Amino acid sequence: MSKGTVVLAYSGGLDTSCILVWLKEQGYDVIAYLANIGQDEDFEAAHKKAESLGAKKVFIEDLRAEFVEEFIWPSVQANAIYEDRYLLGTSVARPCIARRQVQIAQREGAQYVSHGATGKGNDQIRFELTCYALYPEVKIIAPWRIPEFYTRFKGRKDLMEYAQAHGIPVPVTPKAPWSMDANLMHISYESGILENPKSHAPADLYLMTKNPEDTPTSPDLIELEFKKGVPVKVSHLKDGKSKDTPLEIFSYVNEIGGKHGVGRIDIVENRFIGMKSRGIYETPGGTILYHAHLDIEAFTMDREVRRIKQGLGIRFSELLYNGFWYSPECEFVRHCIEKSQESVEGKVQLSVFKGHVYVLGRESPRSPLQRRAGQYGCTGGLRSLRCVWLH
Amino acid sequence: MSKGTVVLAYSGGLDTSCILVWLKEQGYDVIAYLANIGQDEDFEAAHKKAESLGAKKVFIEDLRAEFVEEFIWPSVQANAIYEDRYLLGTSVARPCIARRQVQIAQREGAQYVSHGATGKGNDQIRFELTCYALYPEVKIIAPWRIPEFYTRFKGRKDLMEYAQAHGIPVPVTPKAPWSMDANLMHISYESGILENPKSHAPADLYLMTKNPEDTPTSPDLIELEFKKGVPVKVSHLKDGKSKDTPLEIFSYVNEIGGKHGVGRIDIVENRFIGMKSRGIYETPGGTILYHAHLDIEAFTMDREVRRIKQGLGIRFSELLYNGFWYSPECEFVRHCIEKSQESVEGKVQLSVFKGHVYVLGRESPRSPLQRRAGQYGCTGGLRSLRCVWLH
Amino acid sequence: MSKGTVVLAYSGGLDTSCILVWLKEQGYDVIAYLANIGQDEDFEAAHKKAESLGAKKVFIEDLRAEFVEEFIWPSVQANAIYEDRYLLGTSVARPCIARRQVQIAQREGAQYVSHGATGKGNDQIRFELTCYALYPEVKIIAPWRIPEFYTRFKGRKDLMEYAQAHGIPVPVTPKAPWSMDANLMHISYESGILENPKSHAPADLYLMTKNPEDTPTSPDLIELEFKKGVPVKVSHLKDGKSKDTPLEIFSYVNEIGGKHGVGRIDIVENRFIGMKSRGIYETPGGTILYHAHLDIEAFTMDREVRRIKQGLGIRFSELLYNGFWYSPECEFVRHCIEKSQESVEGKVQLSVFKGHVYVLGRESPRSPLQRRAGQYGCTGGLRSLRCVWLH
Amino acid sequence: MSKGTVVLAYSGGLDTSCILVWLKEQGYDVIAYLANIGQDEDFEAAHKKAESLGAKKVFIEDLRAEFVEEFIWPSVQANAIYEDRYLLGTSVARPCIARRQVQIAQREGAQYVSHGATGKGNDQIRFELTCYALYPEVKIIAPWRIPEFYTRFKGRKDLMEYAQAHGIPVPVTPKAPWSMDANLMHISYESGILENPKSHAPADLYLMTKNPEDTPTSPDLIELEFKKGVPVKVSHLKDGKSKDTPLEIFSYVNEIGGKHGVGRIDIVENRFIGMKSRGIYETPGGTILYHAHLDIEAFTMDREVRRIKQGLGIRFSELLYNGFWYSPECEFVRHCIEKSQESVEGKVQLSVFKGHVYVLGRESPRSPLQRRAGQYGCTGGLRSLRCVWLH
Repeated sequence: MSKGTVVLAYSGGLDTSCILVWLKEQGYDVIAYLANIGQDEDFEAAHKKAESLGAKKVFIEDLRAEFVEEFIWPSVQANAIYEDRYLLGTSVARPCIARRQVQIAQREGAQYVSHGATGKGNDQIRFELTCYALYPEVKIIAPWRIPEFYTRFKGRKDLMEYAQAHGIPVPVTPKAPWSMDANLMHISYESGILENPKSHAPADLYLMTKNPEDTPTSPDLIELEFKKGVPVKVSHLKDGKSKDTPLEIFSYVNEIGGKHGVGRIDIVENRFIGMKSRGIYETPGGTILYHAHLDIEAFTMDREVRRIKQGLGIRFSELLYNGFWYSPECEFVRHCIEKSQESVEGKVQLSVFKGHVYVLGRESPRSPLQRRAGQYGCTGGLRSLRCVWLH
Repeated sequence: MSKGTVVLAYSGGLDTSCILVWLKEQGYDVIAYLANIGQDEDFEAAHKKAESLGAKKVFIEDLRAEFVEEFIWPSVQANAIYEDRYLLGTSVARPCIARRQVQIAQREGAQYVSHGATGKGNDQIRFELTCYALYPEVKIIAPWRIPEFYTRFKGRKDLMEYAQAHGIPVPVTPKAPWSMDANLMHISYESGILENPKSHAPADLYLMTKNPEDTPTSPDLIELEFKKGVPVKVSHLKDGKSKDTPLEIFSYVNEIGGKHGVGRIDIVENRFIGMKSRGIYETPGGTILYHAHLDIEAFTMDREVRRIKQGLGIRFSELLYNGFWYSPECEFVRHCIEKSQESVEGKVQLSVFKGHVYVLGRESPRSPLQRRAGQYGCTGGLRSLRCVWLH
Repeated sequence: MSKGTVVLAYSGGLDTSCILVWLKEQGYDVIAYLANIGQDEDFEAAHKKAESLGAKKVFIEDLRAEFVEEFIWPSVQANAIYEDRYLLGTSVARPCIARRQVQIAQREGAQYVSHGATGKGNDQIRFELTCYALYPEVKIIAPWRIPEFYTRFKGRKDLMEYAQAHGIPVPVTPKAPWSMDANLMHISYESGILENPKSHAPADLYLMTKNPEDTPTSPDLIELEFKKGVPVKVSHLKDGKSKDTPLEIFSYVNEIGGKHGVGRIDIVENRFIGMKSRGIYETPGGTILYHAHLDIEAFTMDREVRRIKQGLGIRFSELLYNGFWYSPECEFVRHCIEKSQESVEGKVQLSVFKGHVYVLGRESPRSPLQRRAGQYGCTGGLRSLRCVWLH
Repeated sequence: MSKGTVVLAYSGGLDTSCILVWLKEQGYDVIAYLANIGQDEDFEAAHKKAESLGAKKVFIEDLRAEFVEEFIWPSVQANAIYEDRYLLGTSVARPCIARRQVQIAQREGAQYVSHGATGKGNDQIRFELTCYALYPEVKIIAPWRIPEFYTRFKGRKDLMEYAQAHGIPVPVTPKAPWSMDANLMHISYESGILENPKSHAPADLYLMTKNPEDTPTSPDLIELEFKKGVPVKVSHLKDGKSKDTPLEIFSYVNEIGGKHGVGRIDIVENRFIGMKSRGIYETPGGTILYHAHLDIEAFTMDREVRRIKQGLGIRFSELLYNGFWYSPECEFVRHCIEKSQESVEGKVQLSVFKGHVYVLGRESPRSPLQRRAGQYGCTGGLRSLRCVWLH
């Protein structure tokens, strides 16, 4: 008799394929769930593979549009950045993926969810906090924290043998000497040969961005239009091409950023769990939006509101990094940040060239600067009162 | 020909009576405006006096209800306290008074407003920032910053002589050797013999609160009920008396607090303008509400939301103290604080006795604590997830 | 053969007596360690009891002086207060107690330390973080988190039976229907009948402070003198009595506070582990020092330094509450706070009466206020520059 | 008879030449003071010019080394950045320049100092706050705030006429259609045709950095070594060139940055005085150091210390921007930040290419990461305790 049904966050790779079979061995019915959040993946092949391994059901879910609108956009509003450098591309995808997973679990009557995250990283936390927040009764099976599992599978070799023994297709290409996480927003690279913080990243590591040495020798000029702090349109200033839905806008700035090698960083960050970890990230579109939003925000927002909001943005970034998207405090902070964005409206013109983003100019119907010549003295906003009072 | 119309914040006292006449001398039409925010005052006499001094119109405005609802209540939600001790009773009244003054100015077509605040205090700033914020074109006449005025009136003696010369009734009782500011929320005492921070306040200084040595020898027990962070009802636990409108609730806690000598403080504070200043305050009802709200808030609010809200409350208090109620950042902060209060609901029981407020117990339909025995583990809120995750 | 030596934090009570014997049963040599931090205890009897139960060695350590100087004084400098109300009397004792415990372990060559804290409270964390910080190789035995222990001892009844079976003296007086933690700074009361946040505390609960209804009908007036933010002298303004060593000063303000019923609070707080918890505390001397230090600090410290220091004090309080006294961030924060105290010097006069502390006046050689009449304009400090510049 | 002696901050340009003569006209003895903080200037010619205009004495002071060591280095430690983008190149120079000016005034017995800053900008405040802080009795003559001066000189034309009438050499090249401020750290451009925030900056604006379209097609690789958070050595990874004194290090990273077009930004910022202002800045060496220091700091500093220090760095940046370098709070914050840097030690390798700085790797004897394989579990630092405790 079945122990119950588990919805497994399935990637199609060796680890989660083994977990799928192992869960069945343990007596569970397994529903495989694979989220499309923009990673480069053969989803159809993954679907077939999961079925062939004995998944009771398989769900391939296209979450790209909601990923941009409900997760990336609030991060843009917040100028979300962790420890001054990391744009949180992995962190922001986790609650989006886990939310759908528990929705499936609830709809399908599954009491369990499972994932292949290790016991040392941030992702297990981000994943599980979301599950508990949205489906408090759920039970989580985290094989990499279960002794029977992790003592049996001590390394990749054990997984390979298990795969061969259980008819799980084994990867034919050798594993990259590092681990990756890819989605619409970024690709991260860490572990393996990258773990040594001193050694330089190999030139052929990056998949989303061109090497700036090989990018075009003249810039692309684009204009980003914002309303309430989120992009509503991107236009190319030369060819006139433009996009105006969230997914298209984000995909387009990704394309421009990738073409010009924008958004590569190599950092050591502090993980939730305590250790320091070297990570390499490429976030082409996110980097462009970060600079554009910073600019339109500084242009349109009251100075003192901006100071307070800056503090909230830092808090938001820490919460996001640590997996607390679905927490009372993160919901509170998002609400406040959203409120601060009401006047963040206007257009920013940017040049994208050789790995860098240059702001060229901006305009807004809402900026005090542009009303400066007006009747109210210095700025036309309340800040001018201080000015008036000072004199 | 008139230089224009000026709405003067008139108190009925010597200073503003002289200013009224002086403004007329300078060629202005003067509208006298006197706000009733709960101070002990003969409003009818003041009305007549202003008329007799030549005011074109006189407005006595009862602002008590809006003072409580729109100004004190948000301060209660914020746990507003300046430099850990001062409950901001003067600060919170200023924007309320000045708002009505500019409303009158706009309605009556007056281009000018005037006040009798000195050039060294916080009040001029609080007053003027509100005026500019709500009526940006207004011109402010601050006689105590105008050389022709302050060189003419170097001290009280000059005012007295001017009064006698111009038929202004002169106070018959000698002036207290300190200055006072009174409203529904508090009375402040400063300057004069109080200026020396070392000398103790005289026992007969206080007007709103009894000396704790002379208060009843048994406590009053009351219950305060909150919804969305504001008091909606106060009940006496013995005699069953209760009040449920904002002004009545506040007046009642004032009465209880005053009867038991609650809310006296003696502090040195840092003024906006830079100097340190010794002030003595009595805030009976405000002190009771401060303790009651702290308690129900800690009881019902998520821990991490509370931490963020605490920082916003400190910022709010500074803004309020410095006169920035009507500023973009204070409006933003008030919005955020109000959002945080959505779940702040319940009843707190208090004992008021001999100058002190004791919380005795509390209950709420919203507290995670009371749901602790429930199905979700530790707390039933998201914090429990952390708890769950930790184990 | 012995499994090794364990230093047990021994209280002399039923729980840790059972743990002592149980540890021996498990094959450990046990060193009993009992810290005297000012609690009311028969230390000699506890010494004998531990020996009779088979402790290899027994250490009774008088930590009162270092508790005041190294733990309470920095908390006074910080105005340490958790969630605006709790003066952290338990939290501040933990690192003091645990520090000595690991010192003994290191000196005696013990690889293990053990404690009787439960698995749901803050104390286990405070205790263990200190141990790991100061003796990183140490192994901690926390019986109340070990299944063989906590499944064997499900309630007090099991402990009683085990005690009887193993010759452990059994308490003759019935256990109070709540739990207590006492030290020089405070006594806390929680659990049991107090757990319901609505029910009022019984009148006879309090041991350190008199019921304000029964305290003297006239106040005691005292003067506290501070240097670098810590008390260096306390004097009675009537009888001239004075104290000038840390332990004597603290004991004296405790005595005065207790006599007048000062420092009782009844709160619900947010524990580290996530849940909300009702606690009742009495902190007589700590409450007096809190008010006195707030006053002398506001009087002598630059306004803007104070604002920054206030934020650091809040952070310090959270760290202290959560057990991170010995952490890099808490050491950093303590260093910064100590730096801020360099100018905090002077005398504060206070009245202590019927549960309340009244500041009456203060003086200092360092206060800008007192130099106001000087040559530099408004305040004689740098704030005056702002003032000067504004005009 | 002379009204007294005034030390004038003299630039050699039209404005301060006219002010010099005007001050003499008003009856002052004038000492001309020109600081060399790395701007491109003919100091000898300026010296002669000041003498020929009647300066009683002329001081040309080379402040470059102290500018780097005492002002830029603390800013590097703080990761000082205003509103997330501006590296504060002008702000950081002001206290350095003004400090020497008042030193000269004190040494020469001058009661007055004077400057040519306008009445609308930040610089007057930065300048004057420093003067008052270091020489509280000084009197400041700010001609652009004195009606007799600014009504006489309504525009450049009036200055030109005055110059011609008083034998002041008149500039032969036309004035650039914007204003500039240059020093070792940066050049700022604002006003004039740049005032419109929408219009793009002309390509030939920049003087310190090459246009990235014209920079070398291969990167320069350098290594920066830090001790206590400040650079102690820079080395070129190919040609082996290295520098190890502060001025040489800073000049060298400036050279590398300028060669590769690094450090250009175009922003709208919020001025102290209230208005928003568009500014264009180039900060080549400062940008390189900002990225290098961020990296070594994140690598070596405890996570939680970093969070607290980040907040202090933001505060420091605001204080610096607003001119409060010499204030109690800024001194306090600098002290705390310096304390936080004790462990910030190691080497960062960077690639500088086409306007961008890439961190390639880093090493340190102090990083917890590198001790991870050690005996203490996860990180070898205290964070590991949390880790240990969590499991």
